[in-house]
Amino acid sequence: MKSSPVRDILAVLGRGDIISFAGGIPDPTLFELEDFRESFEYVFAHQGARALQYASTIGEPELREQAALRLSRHLPTTANQVQVTSGSQEGLYLAATTLVDPGDVVLVERPTYLTAVQAFTLVGARLVGVESDDDGMLPDELEDAIEAYGPKLVYLIPTFQNPTGRTMSAERRAAIADVLVRTGVPLLEDDPYGELRFEGEALPPIAAQPGMAARTVLLNSASKVMAPGVRVGWLRAEGQILRSLEIAKQGVGLQTAVTDQLAVAHYLATYDLDAHIAHVAGIYRVRRDAMLASLDARMPEGATATRPEGGMFVWVRVGGDQDSALVLPKAVDLGVAFVPGWPFYAGEPDRTTMRLSFVTNSPETIDEGLARLAAAWGW
Amino acid sequence: MKSSPVRDILAVLGRGDIISFAGGIPDPTLFELEDFRESFEYVFAHQGARALQYASTIGEPELREQAALRLSRHLPTTANQVQVTSGSQEGLYLAATTLVDPGDVVLVERPTYLTAVQAFTLVGARLVGVESDDDGMLPDELEDAIEAYGPKLVYLIPTFQNPTGRTMSAERRAAIADVLVRTGVPLLEDDPYGELRFEGEALPPIAAQPGMAARTVLLNSASKVMAPGVRVGWLRAEGQILRSLEIAKQGVGLQTAVTDQLAVAHYLATYDLDAHIAHVAGIYRVRRDAMLASLDARMPEGATATRPEGGMFVWVRVGGDQDSALVLPKAVDLGVAFVPGWPFYAGEPDRTTMRLSFVTNSPETIDEGLARLAAAWGW
Repeated sequence: MKSSPVRDILAVLGRGDIISFAGGIPDPTLFELEDFRESFEYVFAHQGARALQYASTIGEPELREQAALRLSRHLPTTANQVQVTSGSQEGLYLAATTLVDPGDVVLVERPTYLTAVQAFTLVGARLVGVESDDDGMLPDELEDAIEAYGPKLVYLIPTFQNPTGRTMSAERRAAIADVLVRTGVPLLEDDPYGELRFEGEALPPIAAQPGMAARTVLLNSASKVMAPGVRVGWLRAEGQILRSLEIAKQGVGLQTAVTDQLAVAHYLATYDLDAHIAHVAGIYRVRRDAMLASLDARMPEGATATRPEGGMFVWVRVGGDQDSALVLPKAVDLGVAFVPGWPFYAGEPDRTTMRLSFVTNSPETIDEGLARLAAAWGW
Repeated sequence: MKSSPVRDILAVLGRGDIISFAGGIPDPTLFELEDFRESFEYVFAHQGARALQYASTIGEPELREQAALRLSRHLPTTANQVQVTSGSQEGLYLAATTLVDPGDVVLVERPTYLTAVQAFTLVGARLVGVESDDDGMLPDELEDAIEAYGPKLVYLIPTFQNPTGRTMSAERRAAIADVLVRTGVPLLEDDPYGELRFEGEALPPIAAQPGMAARTVLLNSASKVMAPGVRVGWLRAEGQILRSLEIAKQGVGLQTAVTDQLAVAHYLATYDLDAHIAHVAGIYRVRRDAMLASLDARMPEGATATRPEGGMFVWVRVGGDQDSALVLPKAVDLGVAFVPGWPFYAGEPDRTTMRLSFVTNSPETIDEGLARLAAAWGW
């Protein structure tokens, strides 16, 4: 087990004058601090003794109800199909430890979310990467990999993927679902960013494809659209899978903080989260545009950047023969940070890649940071 | 994997007129609700954006400092030896997944905490129970078991054990530590109740014995002495073990809720937790006395009850040939609940045992509950 390079980079940042594109964190100046303060006040005024006591592992009814309402926008969901989690990372780990035994293969995108790699590694999974194009994982490659490896699970982030920012098209979702239904492999679908859309049409999760709801664990989180510090997320699952996840959560941590569950439930019932998301998305969109414009102006020939319709990340493939991990120390010396691409890969990495977050800096700062980054790479 | 019988019993309680001795929960009427409300208000007034943002996996500095201060009463501890956890159940799971591989043996007390059994089972451990007497685990039996099974870990709750309420004597702590130092087996020491002492002298943890600090993961929790709903605990470990636990926590859940961490840190820095504990202990003591007096008056010859000096539980061994799990439905029909003893055992259980919590009912209610319990058993 290795530590997360992102977390290790975050640990040394915040010191001095470094422009960071390394974080996977939302802009804290956009948090609805007053609404959260009021939500916690409400909980202590009306539900105080309950908030401080032990409670069920599955989660507080009010929060499960709110989660079901939001999930039902794309996929009919009842509150009793919802398990509350301490952020979606816990949901990811619960699915990993429940559905995967040591030595089992899990198929993931190339590249994929690196803390998912950590969670799967922790339960002894063998990760195999499947190739993607700009529309997401390739169905033929998926089917070949299922035949070759007999995986226990497929893990996908179909919308505004971490690290690439890519979104799987509607046609591709149907094709991937078709492969999974035919081969009977369960899906872990991670959707932490889906609501952070700046443009284009919202796409239902793969779990909403015919035959998929019962074989999918769908992860949602309050972290990216409300606040990560409260550690509240939820997952949707059905039948025996849901029951197994609940039992695993008993062993891993009994339950999620009741204080935070009730506060988030109150927030969702009382405030206009959609309006907040629209506000945040408008600001993030300007920052994405600034990053893409500055990249286009600076990148050398042959380098490519993704053009995400939402989320938090642009993925740059520089090409050539420089290893981004070796460029990083130079970049930090010049006052800019990013996450090198290699840890996002199961198997052989493309070491000329890097992940850039566009959400925590102003357009001007983004341009200045990219000027430093260009100097570090020698563009 | 089985669900926890305690959690399943708790799920059907609270309906109707049942006197419950089944819980492992503190009396919620004794929570310092106003102090917690003020602590959360303080956090939102002074640390709001920080409370809602991602933070480090190891935990917030203020809370690590407060935890180190309390741990240092018995064992010199610096803040950088503290890992914050989402309750001590998470600490238990992190230690299990870090120190134990599938198929490895873990030695536990007979009986032991049943949710620990769940956590160890989840990581594929093979549990072997070691006999105890009223002074705790027997050192000779421990040494024999280490020789016979080559365990990766020993798990102990030395003070006011769950489920028995027993406390390991000072001499026994030294003898157990001697065996562990000689054989080189690491210790997971769980101490959620230690501060809830009604009488007698406080005993330092086994981790404070010579040579033990570096080979022990010591779990503490805010749950039993402050409030379980906030899900804040911490563990003490050193060197590579501490680093491995931190990396595992990245994969299991990234971090503990910052809101709750900062609120608990403020509470510990601002309010007199010792005075609160003394107040709670005084009330729990009266309830323990009521339970023991009522048991003494009602139990048949041959039945025994432990006489805990603190904590929350009395352990009754009825003897004879009745299975407490089969008595439970009759007891619930008569309006009283308890936890049958069998799930607390690794290996062959003593099925005539049961765990009774004395902390959530008044002396009068305890006596009435035990009258119903006596009827259910046919005493």
